[in-house]
This record gives sequence, C-alpha cells and structure tokens, in this order.
Amino acid sequence: MRLAELSERSGVSTATIKYYLREGLLPPGVQVNATTAEYDEEHLRRLRLVRAMIQVGRVPVATVREVLGHVDDDSLPRAIRLGAAVWALPQVPEPDEDDEFVQAAHQEVTALLDQLGWQNAKRLTSLSPAYRSLMVGVAALRRLGYDFGTELLTPYAELMYRTAVLDLDNMEAHSSQQEEQIEFAILGAILNEPVLQALHRLAQEEETTRRYGFE
Amino acid sequence: MRLAELSERSGVSTATIKYYLREGLLPPGVQVNATTAEYDEEHLRRLRLVRAMIQVGRVPVATVREVLGHVDDDSLPRAIRLGAAVWALPQVPEPDEDDEFVQAAHQEVTALLDQLGWQNAKRLTSLSPAYRSLMVGVAALRRLGYDFGTELLTPYAELMYRTAVLDLDNMEAHSSQQEEQIEFAILGAILNEPVLQALHRLAQEEETTRRYGFE
Repeated sequence: MRLAELSERSGVSTATIKYYLREGLLPPGVQVNATTAEYDEEHLRRLRLVRAMIQVGRVPVATVREVLGHVDDDSLPRAIRLGAAVWALPQVPEPDEDDEFVQAAHQEVTALLDQLGWQNAKRLTSLSPAYRSLMVGVAALRRLGYDFGTELLTPYAELMYRTAVLDLDNMEAHSSQQEEQIEFAILGAILNEPVLQALHRLAQEEETTRRYGFE
Repeated sequence: MRLAELSERSGVSTATIKYYLREGLLPPGVQVNATTAEYDEEHLRRLRLVRAMIQVGRVPVATVREVLGHVDDDSLPRAIRLGAAVWALPQVPEPDEDDEFVQAAHQEVTALLDQLGWQNAKRLTSLSPAYRSLMVGVAALRRLGYDFGTELLTPYAELMYRTAVLDLDNMEAHSSQQEEQIEFAILGAILNEPVLQALHRLAQEEETTRRYGFE
C-alpha cells in the first residue's frame, strides 16, 4: 500500500508517519520510484504499536526506539525479549542501598516472594525494574510510617498473579508468532496504566457505594 | 511536639515542613510563643499523607491542596468524600464526544458495566474520571485497530473488583474513623501506580519464565 492508504488504515496522519520514518521508529518502505514507497501489513502493525506507545502510553520517542530494538533482536531468548521490552519502559531510579528503609524493604519483598513461591521472579531480582519499583515503593511507605508488609501485600500479589496469567493467555490467543506476541506484551504493559487503573477505580466506586450508599 | 520532633518522627526536614505550612498543606501548630509552635499526632498523620502524595505519588502541590480540601469537607457524604479525594488526583482530559471511536467505546464500556452488574458505577458515569479514563483508553485502542471488547475486559474487571474489595477491607481494618479512612483511600490510590503495577510486572516475569523458561 502507499503512504496515503497506510495513513487511512492506521488513522495516523501522513506527516506523523513521515516523522516516525525519519526517527527510525518505522522501517522504510520499498521504494518504487523516486517519490513513492510501498508499505505492507507489517508496517501497519508496527505503526499501530508505535502510536499506542506514544499516544496512549506517553512513552518518549527515544524509549520507543529502545523498546523496538529489543523487540527486533531475535538473538535474545523469548522470556528475556518479552521482559526486556517492558524493562525499557519508564522506570524508577536506583534505590539507595545504604538506606535503612531500603534494606528493610529488600527483606520484606524477599520474604513476600518466598511466601508466594515466586522463585523465578526471585532469580531475576538483581535485573528486574519491577522488583526495584516494588522495593522503592515499600521503602518510601515504611519511611512515612506506613507498614505495607508481607501480610498486606500477599493477597494483592495473588490477584496480580491471576492478572498476569490472563495477560499471557490473551497474548498466546492473540498470536502464535513470537514477534507479534512481544508487541502484544508491550501493549499490555502500556495498557496497564490507563485501562487497568481505570477498571480498578471504577470497581472502588462500585464497592464504596455498595457499602456506604450514595448518602 | 515541637517542629524538630515532628521532623524527626516523620523523616521530613524542618525546611520542607515549613514549606508545607506556608503552602497550607499542613494546618498551623498552636503558637506557644513568638518563635515556637506545638504540633500533635494529627499533624504527623497529615504530614505523612502529604509526603506520600508528593514523594511517592508525584502529585503537584496545587492538587494536594485540592485533595485535602475534599478530605476535610465533612459536609459531603462519605462515598463522595472517598471518591472526590481520588477524583482530584491527576486525570485524563475530556474525550471528544463527536468522535466515532469515543462513541463506540461508550457503548462498549456501558455493556461491560451491565455485564458485570456494576449498577452503582453506572449511575456515576457522568461524574467519574475513572469511567472517562477507561473510555479514553478503549477508544484509543479501537482507533489503533486493537479490539479490547467486553469479552477481554470482563475477567480483568472481575480481578480489579476483588482488588477493590481488598482495598476497602484494609481501609476498614486500618481505622473506624472516617477521616483516617479517607486518608488511607488516597494513599491506596497513589500506591496503585508504583506498588500494584510493580507486583503485576513481577507476576508477569514469574509467569513468563514459568511458561518459557530462562532459555
């Protein structure tokens, strides 16, 4: 298809598509003459992914480029490609390891992983930005005098595990092709924020009014 | 207690506490002489909440002031105070009602609420920023050609409902006093982002490596 059709089918303006091409977020089309290039279904799929990251996920262009680098690197093992793509999304800064609250949070989160039996996640802790965010969050709360310990976090972690199982079931149902699965996983990570959070807040409204009414 | 002790017990510097006092995020202490004021446990609790919003939740100072206004307005009914405080947190912009994808998302989300039996949440839709975010997210995805319909969203919504039940159970266990419950609800909303998201990503890592191994 030509640029106009790619724009039509994706709902992304031709000016924006040209910008993505210049920025290397979209591979070039096949040049058919000096002014015209031909694009295919893979361009459309990649364009939609880029658009979702930038528009829905508000991911910066440089990060999008980094994430796509992981998606396209088929020398990496599958679990790492799936993880690495998500790992390239915006993350919390490194915690201060000398801080007493950070040290306490380390122990707490390690105890949580043991209690949950998440031995694989435990093996990945030194690499994982998810582990780091959890620790930073727990440490910040402890510093403020709020005790979000293993007992409070375990039932949440169990619900999040069931959510993750849904994510992977949906990913496998979406496509059996690894490239498309990885794209779907990125989309899931981006969706996490607006859609899952919105569902959570709607559920809170529902449950709050069920318990306390509208009065 | 004096300012120094308030600082000591909260882990917040005296300079920052003075800034919060100037900005009206913390009520003034009782002046015991020209240079000294006395603070109590309520100051400490409020200070921890403000600190959590700003430091963990990265909520802007003006929004913190707005949220605290709702917390302290005891003329409002309980469900509204609980909701209004969360509604004052950062939100998505108004969707364009003339847009065909927004209209389709409206229908989809309404069908979802019917299927779930969330009739209270449905009554609140015109007011609720959570409903608005969900719609904006679903519309953006539809525009990109991704179909996140009722069938895909229902099991997520059910897990989020169970998460919300946990939130309210914890809130009620935390305190039977309405003021403290509302503060706890705000904290829950702020935590949603870093801690719940981190747990979700850790769970994804665990499940991904269980399914595909480390190779």
